[in-house]
Amino acid sequence: MRLLVIGGVAAGLSAAARARRLDPGLEIVVLEKGPAISYGACGLPYYVEGRIRRAGELIVYTPEYFRKARNITVRTGARVISIAHPRREAVLENGERVHYDRLVIATGARPRRVDIPGAGQPHVFTLHTLDDAERLKAYLREKQPKRAVVVGAGYIGLEAADALRRNGLAVTLVEQSAHVLHRGDAELTKAVQERLERFRVALCWNARAPEIGSYDLAVLAVGLQPNVEIAVEAGVELGRTGAIRVDERMETNLSGVYAAGDCAEALHLVTGRPAYIPLGTTANKMGRVAGANAAGGRDRFGGVVGTAIVNVFGMGVAITGLSVEQARREGFAPVSARITARSRQSYFGGRPITVELVADSGTRRLLGGSVWGEEGVEGRINVIATALHNRMRVEDIEQLDLAYAPPFATVWDPVLIAAQQLSKMV
Amino acid sequence: MRLLVIGGVAAGLSAAARARRLDPGLEIVVLEKGPAISYGACGLPYYVEGRIRRAGELIVYTPEYFRKARNITVRTGARVISIAHPRREAVLENGERVHYDRLVIATGARPRRVDIPGAGQPHVFTLHTLDDAERLKAYLREKQPKRAVVVGAGYIGLEAADALRRNGLAVTLVEQSAHVLHRGDAELTKAVQERLERFRVALCWNARAPEIGSYDLAVLAVGLQPNVEIAVEAGVELGRTGAIRVDERMETNLSGVYAAGDCAEALHLVTGRPAYIPLGTTANKMGRVAGANAAGGRDRFGGVVGTAIVNVFGMGVAITGLSVEQARREGFAPVSARITARSRQSYFGGRPITVELVADSGTRRLLGGSVWGEEGVEGRINVIATALHNRMRVEDIEQLDLAYAPPFATVWDPVLIAAQQLSKMV
Repeated sequence: MRLLVIGGVAAGLSAAARARRLDPGLEIVVLEKGPAISYGACGLPYYVEGRIRRAGELIVYTPEYFRKARNITVRTGARVISIAHPRREAVLENGERVHYDRLVIATGARPRRVDIPGAGQPHVFTLHTLDDAERLKAYLREKQPKRAVVVGAGYIGLEAADALRRNGLAVTLVEQSAHVLHRGDAELTKAVQERLERFRVALCWNARAPEIGSYDLAVLAVGLQPNVEIAVEAGVELGRTGAIRVDERMETNLSGVYAAGDCAEALHLVTGRPAYIPLGTTANKMGRVAGANAAGGRDRFGGVVGTAIVNVFGMGVAITGLSVEQARREGFAPVSARITARSRQSYFGGRPITVELVADSGTRRLLGGSVWGEEGVEGRINVIATALHNRMRVEDIEQLDLAYAPPFATVWDPVLIAAQQLSKMV
Repeated sequence: MRLLVIGGVAAGLSAAARARRLDPGLEIVVLEKGPAISYGACGLPYYVEGRIRRAGELIVYTPEYFRKARNITVRTGARVISIAHPRREAVLENGERVHYDRLVIATGARPRRVDIPGAGQPHVFTLHTLDDAERLKAYLREKQPKRAVVVGAGYIGLEAADALRRNGLAVTLVEQSAHVLHRGDAELTKAVQERLERFRVALCWNARAPEIGSYDLAVLAVGLQPNVEIAVEAGVELGRTGAIRVDERMETNLSGVYAAGDCAEALHLVTGRPAYIPLGTTANKMGRVAGANAAGGRDRFGGVVGTAIVNVFGMGVAITGLSVEQARREGFAPVSARITARSRQSYFGGRPITVELVADSGTRRLLGGSVWGEEGVEGRINVIATALHNRMRVEDIEQLDLAYAPPFATVWDPVLIAAQQLSKMV
């Protein structure tokens, strides 16, 4: 019995490792098209920044490790160009055919193309793979560019702007919409904008096509698009998001064929509908579930609430669930409260922290939240995310028994203050 | 219609303020026996430490503020010695009688007496009120003590040991039991012990009666005892913990008489039974509910999960819910997993963080947790506390959509890693 995994980054390797743990006798083969496996893609901006010296430091495990420690065969440079499912074969670029009994598709995603004149020029980069980051870093070193443009104010665009600015470049950030992080959230955007301006990043909102030719360097970061082509050709169905549709066991419409990670959808627990939110955290969780089930286990993946965090020049900016705008589009009747308080007691150096909570005014159910500030952001967004997983109502969030001592918080935690405010409004 | 509140610190003032908000026409009188109201008692150790210069900085609001801004009469130095409930009167020390229609008892707690020879000597202190802290601070300044003993390894004892050590004293910490924080938790105790030893605090476990006479200074911190005497005399019933029994509206057995804060019990959401866990956070929440209901509202207090955090020489130590030992005593069949991971990526200076989760092996329900480390402790314990509020099961905690970016966390948050470990065991 052979489990084949296509893709050797987060989801693929989580699947392989989990399958191995459940079934020591299974033959497991991982095919990775790139030269490296198991790298922390979320760390790429920090390699560009210079905080990480060598890109290789982002690699967590090698193929050798997987072979020796896990008895898993990992092949790099092995690009699958098609899947012949009736014959249970994956076909490689070189014509080689690899048989499988069970298949996990973890083909990931690629940067969305931008329809901008000059997007193919050599000074234009994306920041998705280890290779991308190394090429960009080499360009910085060799060409000493002075003026950069970053296209897209999602989290990768924000991190790229930060990393380039810290390399001394003049940076312009160009966003097609009027908002950061695809939330349609004016206040969140304003907070990020103020931070970017303080660090002298120039901003262009509602800008369709920047003059890429007039910059020394461009980074395109307008989102990801799932790698689904070989799956589709093999008869795997996509969902409404354009990513691979899976059930809660991560199985596709083809029996014995699983999908996980950035190529697949996940159930959004707030909307109750599939969403495409490609993130490493989710990829790992989905991979584990796919691997367990491919090895004959019975795991399920509950879904996501859309939590993310990004560092913008020392300010943490975190989101989870739906913004007011997103909630309205999903048919809720959202109300929100936004407060600014202190991360902890001022005599312990507490810093301002802003918490916004969004709830449905009919049901009083929490729908989402955002948090930003210089410290204590990750803990607060995680409380809100946990509340979303549990479909908590505003009045119950108000009473959460959160930890307090002056070095860590304030007696009313900012999340509780926001819930109190919101409670008056729903 | 007059609302009388006995006690002007956390619970009493929360009650008064909330009642005012709901009923602008209500007459509200607060009687506080001490000289000051509205002070952050949790900050007292940091005044002793010297981080806070003047004890007055801990005072948040003055009686004048309440009178002018809230139209609430606050009297300090007004000690109630009895309650004549049939006549709806509180009797003050000076014989004065104050009528009420509704009553909130927020008489707080006092340090438990220790039956140790010499406990009445002038170099022996407790650390409960602003006055206590000022006397202790004056003693440090005037007598320049060199050797201190702290009796009790609860959070106040730990904070006192830290504060005295930072004042340059040689400190011995003496605990009657074998463990810190009343958890019966050997590993938690070991972690705290190592920290204390690193900062050269001498430790005595299982020690009944330290030789107080042989130290220059002693701080007694063996827990709190609720101030219930005048309530009991008036016919208010106590619960099994010895604190005032209240329903979820914070009403006592006497109609129209509410109790809140350190004098009252709260429902423990994990055990389903009342518990006595006097903390400022809970006092504020109970006070709000008592105040709302005393003003004719319909609020309820859900209960607590027993979350607390303490800073031990730069290490955060946090607990919530039940330890294994406590769970066993409550009739559960606890299993636990404890992992040490990193608070965030090492290239952002991540520090080791330990997370222990406890679950019931029969139901797989989370029962408690503890977290310790130099950073990121408060956020993790709050996620666990939120999970406890929602009676989450281990396999659902594993899949929480927590925030990740390298400056803030690791791709598998330590809480998720602990849940994965525990999941294999329940």
